Amino acid sequence: MSRVSSLTSNKNHMSQAIKANDPNRRSWVDVPANSDFPIQNIPFGIFSTDGTAPRTATIIGDTVIDLSALARLGYLSDTGAAADVFSTSTLNAFLELGKATWRAVRDRISDIFEADNGELRDNSDHKAQVLSPAHAAQMYLPVQVGDYTDFYASKEHATNVGTMFRDPANALLPNWLHLPVGYHGRASSIVVSGTPLHRPMGQTRPDPEQPPVFGPCRLFDFELEMGYVLGQGKPLGHRIGVNEASDYIFGVTLFNDWSARDIQKWEYVPLGPFLGKNFGSSMSPWIVTLDALEPFRIPAQERLKPILPYLQQEKDGNIDVNLSVLIQPEGGEEEVISRSNFKYMYWSAEQMLAHHTVNGCNVKAGDMFASGTISGPTPDSYGSMLELCWRGTKPITLKDGSERKFLKDGDTLILRGHAEKDGIRIGFGEVNGQVLPAIQ
Amino acid sequence: MSRVSSLTSNKNHMSQAIKANDPNRRSWVDVPANSDFPIQNIPFGIFSTDGTAPRTATIIGDTVIDLSALARLGYLSDTGAAADVFSTSTLNAFLELGKATWRAVRDRISDIFEADNGELRDNSDHKAQVLSPAHAAQMYLPVQVGDYTDFYASKEHATNVGTMFRDPANALLPNWLHLPVGYHGRASSIVVSGTPLHRPMGQTRPDPEQPPVFGPCRLFDFELEMGYVLGQGKPLGHRIGVNEASDYIFGVTLFNDWSARDIQKWEYVPLGPFLGKNFGSSMSPWIVTLDALEPFRIPAQERLKPILPYLQQEKDGNIDVNLSVLIQPEGGEEEVISRSNFKYMYWSAEQMLAHHTVNGCNVKAGDMFASGTISGPTPDSYGSMLELCWRGTKPITLKDGSERKFLKDGDTLILRGHAEKDGIRIGFGEVNGQVLPAIQ
Repeated sequence: MSRVSSLTSNKNHMSQAIKANDPNRRSWVDVPANSDFPIQNIPFGIFSTDGTAPRTATIIGDTVIDLSALARLGYLSDTGAAADVFSTSTLNAFLELGKATWRAVRDRISDIFEADNGELRDNSDHKAQVLSPAHAAQMYLPVQVGDYTDFYASKEHATNVGTMFRDPANALLPNWLHLPVGYHGRASSIVVSGTPLHRPMGQTRPDPEQPPVFGPCRLFDFELEMGYVLGQGKPLGHRIGVNEASDYIFGVTLFNDWSARDIQKWEYVPLGPFLGKNFGSSMSPWIVTLDALEPFRIPAQERLKPILPYLQQEKDGNIDVNLSVLIQPEGGEEEVISRSNFKYMYWSAEQMLAHHTVNGCNVKAGDMFASGTISGPTPDSYGSMLELCWRGTKPITLKDGSERKFLKDGDTLILRGHAEKDGIRIGFGEVNGQVLPAIQ
Repeated sequence: MSRVSSLTSNKNHMSQAIKANDPNRRSWVDVPANSDFPIQNIPFGIFSTDGTAPRTATIIGDTVIDLSALARLGYLSDTGAAADVFSTSTLNAFLELGKATWRAVRDRISDIFEADNGELRDNSDHKAQVLSPAHAAQMYLPVQVGDYTDFYASKEHATNVGTMFRDPANALLPNWLHLPVGYHGRASSIVVSGTPLHRPMGQTRPDPEQPPVFGPCRLFDFELEMGYVLGQGKPLGHRIGVNEASDYIFGVTLFNDWSARDIQKWEYVPLGPFLGKNFGSSMSPWIVTLDALEPFRIPAQERLKPILPYLQQEKDGNIDVNLSVLIQPEGGEEEVISRSNFKYMYWSAEQMLAHHTVNGCNVKAGDMFASGTISGPTPDSYGSMLELCWRGTKPITLKDGSERKFLKDGDTLILRGHAEKDGIRIGFGEVNGQVLPAIQ
């Protein structure tokens, strides 16, 4: 039986098997063992080399593939995508073409790089125009993000936060099991992996009996999240149904929603997080398509309360992706501080998108939404320093002997993730960012 | 003594008087009595006529002035703005040019249309290319909004809401007098005046003892706000100081932050408003420059608690703008339901922008932020149905005998505003929108 997955959808072209997911394919491009990027992945990003203009790429193994060159040379002419959509500095124009075209392009790339296909493999001139070593590629923010929404969709995370700050007996608020709680975030400050961020300045009130003070954030945190990139939208007034939602989601990235806990605590009542979040969020440069993740779908968590019909999803809602969080102190070695999994979500991406648009809110290609902090059931699988160190009461001791309750200046925080099944590993690369000192 | 205002600023070009504000100027274009658009206003918008491409305009009296034509004909050549910035479908490219250029363009337009200047007045051919009657102009959303932030900066509004939903004795939350509370809103669903909006569908819990239900919003509300359009930004990591902030704000519009109170009530804890707001916000088409409003500045409200230095503003923070709210039932006549004033703000636009960027959050040309609901001190000056009808306990009776606790399908809600002093009236036109039935 083929392990090639299929999509359940009301569109005929969506119900076909996804050729590019065929686990038996191998590429003529070298793919090192444990690479995140076998021929079954084919993620999309924006790159440049040597000061050239940013343009669309994919990656196999450690080799970056210039899709603008591939298109210019005619290799993508039957995919429905005009060559110039790959020459722009964001993926937005490509995203607007829709799922049938994304799939055709990915399938065609899979064909071109399949081991037995000589059309590019045997053309040295074309290969020189198309292929670059990954270490020579500068990666960019892959999309122009119109609007960004952050959800709060891991039950363990919401329970941990509710336990710490409210009432352990009623950690989840009354709405939490009925809808995916979300809030609008800041699109302008989303940056690509590798961008350092200054510790934010801000107003906090460390002593509740004293007036607030101004200074550098003292409780600098990360949040382990996955980001979803929308491929197509609908106009104002139209909703996206939960069972068509996966046709509108282009792909998934690693996402670090940096958080200033002390600023957040003082500001967030009653209208939600603001300056505690909007100084920066970091995403990984390669967007792994939802198509590539289809073989790794698993059933959603059991519903603890019945949900309304508009949130009832037919297909498996969760995706099994191993996630890890690492700290690298300045000048030191990286070490894992948490191991989690994308499967610890109570609400799926499709449920989030259906909920987001059920009131007619319009969404556009390039918009993003994120999962919220993903925490697993055990203390070594929590997705933030706040939870890992339980509000500072359980510091982490690193190999160099130093302690962390929150992040220190100079620390680099790294998120990695990959799905793996039957010998196929679909990875996300990583998102990293270094904490720089505050600008006083 | 001249009544022409001046800006206090650290930039030399900003300290000069604003020529276009000269109250003694009159235009050769007819300006009806009580027009919102005398020659002292010169707001900016995007218009088209007869199916032509949207482009930049201003308005004097009832005459729309095509700035792309004016620029093409060479009239704006000494302003520092290239002619093509006026030919695009949004003001963003113009906004990016900065305050010195906005001011030069506005001053030059004032010169061209000053009563004694014959250069355009006496050129029939050019006038035919430049002038259109306002009734023939189609107006568009004037900016591509990158990010949108809503504040909560009227003390009377925050007090009313706190009194209704929390504790009358402690209506203002502890942070409120120390910082301008704000939250991120949805940029994609901001629409221009005249765009009807469907009543949103959504999840609510009318009976706290029963599970939530799905259906049309029952408590459909407006919010009387002013919107601020950012003219320039700063990159990530850089803050905008409170005393330079007015150089970064291009102008002001009327803004209706439509609200679904029942959806909002169920969803908003703990992360803030989401689907209760993001189905649509409406703005007036003409952006009145902050320059044009300088003569109407008045001192800020008295501080009830000391504020931190980064929020201490030297120049007068408030602006005296008369505001009115009207309902027009379907097929009926419009009538005023509230009279308020922009001066009922506790926090100024400059304080909001300084706070928004104090953590290094980047802002861009075309970004918007809004004041939050503006409520005055008396019940006839409240800025929402929620407050005017005090949670439905004091219905409004319209002239046709019908009652309103919230908005009904078919109602058109209209906001109008103008500043007036010494015989000069700087108006905003209006923002209107009709409530259409929910799409089931």
